[in-house]
Amino acid sequence: MKLGQATIKDIAKALNISSSTVSRALKDYPGISKETKEKVKELAKELNYRPNAVALSLRKSKSSTIGVIIPEVVHFFFSTVISGIEEVAYANGYNVILLQTNESLEREKAAVETMITNQIDGLLVSYSKETTSFEHFQKLIDFNYPIVFFDRIPDLQNTINVTVDDFSGAYSAVKHLIDQGYSKIVHLAGPKNLKISKDRQDGYLKALKEANISVREDWIVPCPLGTSEESETFSLQLLKGKDRPDAVFASNDIAAAGAIKAAKSLGLSVPEDFGAVGFSNWQFSSMIDPPLSTVSQPGFKIGEIAAGLLLDMIDNESEEAFQGKTEVLETRVIVRGSSLRKS
Amino acid sequence: MKLGQATIKDIAKALNISSSTVSRALKDYPGISKETKEKVKELAKELNYRPNAVALSLRKSKSSTIGVIIPEVVHFFFSTVISGIEEVAYANGYNVILLQTNESLEREKAAVETMITNQIDGLLVSYSKETTSFEHFQKLIDFNYPIVFFDRIPDLQNTINVTVDDFSGAYSAVKHLIDQGYSKIVHLAGPKNLKISKDRQDGYLKALKEANISVREDWIVPCPLGTSEESETFSLQLLKGKDRPDAVFASNDIAAAGAIKAAKSLGLSVPEDFGAVGFSNWQFSSMIDPPLSTVSQPGFKIGEIAAGLLLDMIDNESEEAFQGKTEVLETRVIVRGSSLRKS
Repeated sequence: MKLGQATIKDIAKALNISSSTVSRALKDYPGISKETKEKVKELAKELNYRPNAVALSLRKSKSSTIGVIIPEVVHFFFSTVISGIEEVAYANGYNVILLQTNESLEREKAAVETMITNQIDGLLVSYSKETTSFEHFQKLIDFNYPIVFFDRIPDLQNTINVTVDDFSGAYSAVKHLIDQGYSKIVHLAGPKNLKISKDRQDGYLKALKEANISVREDWIVPCPLGTSEESETFSLQLLKGKDRPDAVFASNDIAAAGAIKAAKSLGLSVPEDFGAVGFSNWQFSSMIDPPLSTVSQPGFKIGEIAAGLLLDMIDNESEEAFQGKTEVLETRVIVRGSSLRKS
Repeated sequence: MKLGQATIKDIAKALNISSSTVSRALKDYPGISKETKEKVKELAKELNYRPNAVALSLRKSKSSTIGVIIPEVVHFFFSTVISGIEEVAYANGYNVILLQTNESLEREKAAVETMITNQIDGLLVSYSKETTSFEHFQKLIDFNYPIVFFDRIPDLQNTINVTVDDFSGAYSAVKHLIDQGYSKIVHLAGPKNLKISKDRQDGYLKALKEANISVREDWIVPCPLGTSEESETFSLQLLKGKDRPDAVFASNDIAAAGAIKAAKSLGLSVPEDFGAVGFSNWQFSSMIDPPLSTVSQPGFKIGEIAAGLLLDMIDNESEEAFQGKTEVLETRVIVRGSSLRKS
């Protein structure tokens, strides 16, 4: 955006309405009152507002390609989402290009620029662990650029999101551990800035509370890296401590696998002495020993729904398609050997 | 290409020289004799040759974006290659977009079209299991469009390739099994149309031959799907047979893991009764029980080198940068619990 040129945001601020209302008013979309439209247009004229070049090129383009911005392509969950996206996209004559951010905000911003430069018709985004401000996305949303967030959904108004019920997935996983007779349950938590981490932790807390198990703050261990080595180190410390935990609920399968490794290295038997449940149902999870219990997310379904919502915005530029909404899909606990003491 | 219009290929055929020589001659590149240049230009004029629009747009574009076409992003080996590519690309101001083909030729062709439509500056390609003809790539090569093949390299003239020494990797893996006292070694082979499958099988055969172990054709089992279930089924059949194999060398880690699962389900102990070595060192391989021995490929290094060669073609359009060559990197056997009987 050029300095000194009025933006949609300026107009929105001045009139105390949302940017997308301004944008739609300027385009004479239905669903905006005549009065608002007139006010917006008047102010736009007064402030000498002109849609900028980026915005125009964004709206004019039609490359029949949609872009997916993801933290890591190797993450099994994301790969299943990608498959769902591709299924819907190809069936509708769209190609799919992927950009991975490697959990870096800088790369994420570069990815957004690349998508714009390449005149991609719309974006599906799961943002990085580093992302705490969302201006690079807000800019696009203000121009009614089609964008759908999945899994990791932002704290922004009027976005279109597809995610899973992490809270009840985590709750069910911990309830399952309690049902199996475990009571000293550690939580290996995910990165703090992700809503999914908070939701999983909240589910853990609810299950403990319901069973009248008191919460120990030192047993909620943040694992920012999410590697097997990291959780192995943390788990060893806890398992060597005086008051030994008897189970772990980890916010991802890799961390759960690291905890199992730690327990086995200390001669504990899994699941008898130590139980473990992960999250996401990675490809390897059924192959380790014992096979890992986990919370499965419907990745393919997430991809299908997110792509469907995006294509709806691209092909059918109706007011309704751009209406903010969040689709929440159910998760499912898969019980395997790592947590099955009673059968 | 329009019907009835002469192409570089027509000129090449008529003069019995390669398409890339024709292309370079028409552009007055150094390294082509004056005589050849004159002959080519004369015939081009005679046949009313004009570089077509696709070619022109390919050469004019400068999006500072390179594209990577890969079979599957979730494959751990490819994800390490991608990391290497991104490292070099970002350091040189290029962005990277990925397209996965899901091992489908049709999607691969669509991916090439998408890359051209989006004016991507150059391509890194590992082709699909279905790809047996390479016209969709040859077309690009004929226009001197920058393209580097990695891992799976095509049977085409004058391409630029980066791959690993699959033959000696496989040879060393099987030699290691023989050194550990295994002699009845099955090979779970990869898809037939990939050169890497052939090379790995040839390495297996060489190691057996060198140790005077006779080859049994029924112990070379093609696993076209490459899934754990597939190899588990095949392994169960072999292990239940009269003459039971005592080890497996699989062309990938997933297949090796399936064989271990089959052996364990029959009460055999690994590595005592049955040994296993895979290929590629997947992320899960050190996490299964027992940890899987495997042949590690320098994925990151492959990515770095391939991206370096590609950027050389893009930034420095010299004759030399476009000269066909194949870089072959060394592999390394990683010995873990699944094949270590003697220590």
